[in-house]
Amino acid sequence: MSAAPDSPLLVIALGGNAILRRGDDGTIETQFRRADESMQQIVPLVQAGAKVVLTHGNGPVVGNIVVRNEAARDQIPPMPLYIADADSEGGIGFMLETSLTNALARAGSHRRVVTVVTRCVVDPLDPAFQRPTKPIGPYYTAEEAARLAAEEGWAFAEVPSGLMRRVVPSPKPVEIVEAPTIAQLADSGDVVIAAGGGGVPVVRQADGTLQGVDAVIDKDWASAILAEAIGADHLVILMEADRVYLGFGTPDARPLETLTAEEAERLASELDAGSVGPKVAACAHFARTTGRDAIVCAVEQLHEALAGGAGTRITGG
Amino acid sequence: MSAAPDSPLLVIALGGNAILRRGDDGTIETQFRRADESMQQIVPLVQAGAKVVLTHGNGPVVGNIVVRNEAARDQIPPMPLYIADADSEGGIGFMLETSLTNALARAGSHRRVVTVVTRCVVDPLDPAFQRPTKPIGPYYTAEEAARLAAEEGWAFAEVPSGLMRRVVPSPKPVEIVEAPTIAQLADSGDVVIAAGGGGVPVVRQADGTLQGVDAVIDKDWASAILAEAIGADHLVILMEADRVYLGFGTPDARPLETLTAEEAERLASELDAGSVGPKVAACAHFARTTGRDAIVCAVEQLHEALAGGAGTRITGG
Repeated sequence: MSAAPDSPLLVIALGGNAILRRGDDGTIETQFRRADESMQQIVPLVQAGAKVVLTHGNGPVVGNIVVRNEAARDQIPPMPLYIADADSEGGIGFMLETSLTNALARAGSHRRVVTVVTRCVVDPLDPAFQRPTKPIGPYYTAEEAARLAAEEGWAFAEVPSGLMRRVVPSPKPVEIVEAPTIAQLADSGDVVIAAGGGGVPVVRQADGTLQGVDAVIDKDWASAILAEAIGADHLVILMEADRVYLGFGTPDARPLETLTAEEAERLASELDAGSVGPKVAACAHFARTTGRDAIVCAVEQLHEALAGGAGTRITGG
Repeated sequence: MSAAPDSPLLVIALGGNAILRRGDDGTIETQFRRADESMQQIVPLVQAGAKVVLTHGNGPVVGNIVVRNEAARDQIPPMPLYIADADSEGGIGFMLETSLTNALARAGSHRRVVTVVTRCVVDPLDPAFQRPTKPIGPYYTAEEAARLAAEEGWAFAEVPSGLMRRVVPSPKPVEIVEAPTIAQLADSGDVVIAAGGGGVPVVRQADGTLQGVDAVIDKDWASAILAEAIGADHLVILMEADRVYLGFGTPDARPLETLTAEEAERLASELDAGSVGPKVAACAHFARTTGRDAIVCAVEQLHEALAGGAGTRITGG
């Protein structure tokens, strides 16, 4: 069984919690259990013949890789964050693809699943590089932080406990280097896992060559850029909540079923950057750029949301 | 520019030393310098239109990942070796693909380069599982080793210093899961980086599902299995020496220019398992299975060797 030629092409962005959730013990068994739960929701789509590109966050996993790098600093030179990102694309990709391969096999499907290590171009002039905001890796004392700032040129920010954490920039994604290859594979029927953690951040230098940079790319924005580049019919961003809410967490909370791209952009600018704001903004970008619908929903309601009965739809047309 | 439809399809296996050599300082700068050196040799092949699949070892890199895992063991549950393998496919793949993308860009070529996270099926009944031999990761005292053997079920072997190291099995590769996808990409003109470190080892369980296992797969054997599966015209295995020698390191050393598959098999069984033996054996397997030639040569003589003027050719026809 393969994808039907006229099937919709979907880019589905899994949260970092598709692999590891806050409070989980972090063992490989728990990670695979989470991956299995998430992949169960993908199986019926694949069986229905959809062309599927899965993207995913790497939050807790890449943080762990950085902590391990630092723990062995006196034994082995630590790798830069962008290599930790690339490592996490391999490790998480293997977990998701194996989880999905197995779920498909149990359901009698032999659709191929493949992970493409993905690079994402960012603009070296992005203002984010002047203002690093994303904490990453271990906690340091002020003295340790000062030493690392001098030795490595890292920026630090104080956290509520009074300790320090390294902060890195979060620039906007500009281009997914592997987009043509991802499009080709998805079109031929492979389920493609790509743009993990937003992709490995690279800048394009004056001579056209690429250079890795230490940054964190929002995976929902990277998914939108990818979905636009490959001509996806829908961008679907999965989250914990069932819908986007006005006044979320207040007695007046009101679920939103549909929004135009314009309404979504306005709403996103009012929402917290740490919450559903970037998801709504990324969807609005996709809807405005392509004229097609983007959807934000809970993983358990993926099918209902695609059919129009759940989630929040940001309309493009 | 893309691959010419009738161009030869080459599987080229880089050594672990394409990224890091014994004595290197292990920083990312050194790793990229090594990768740049290796990739320089690939550029003219790509420019001539060849379809190229690059495989590579992961020896020093995955060892470093395991050491970091163990260094942070009291902070974060360590990942199994097979996840470290998958991580290394992401990290090394990113380095090689970026190095090659850049070398091609400087030479005016825009051929796409893509890394496919690759799984390699091994047989759970392979006798290697009863006899783990490959040392991996940090050195332990006898007490630490005894504790980890009890807690993790690991096997250990004493090293010359009197310390202990974990040893894992090295089973023969049976099947490259991603071979059809790799073939499709290479045929369409992408330079494909695949089967890094021999691929992430998995076993196929009774119900058809895949499960990662802690093992080390010989990357030359995995490259041969891949080359056979995708119908490669040649398998090329790169090494430090210029040719296979009879009596290597003795005053009577004699370089070998060509060998039949049969001669190569006989020779491989006489050579040291830690030396060029597995390379010769993997080439013999490819030559015998496909009727086509395999080549062992130094990376600097890749072109001369393909033209027949360097290296050792194991003939299939």
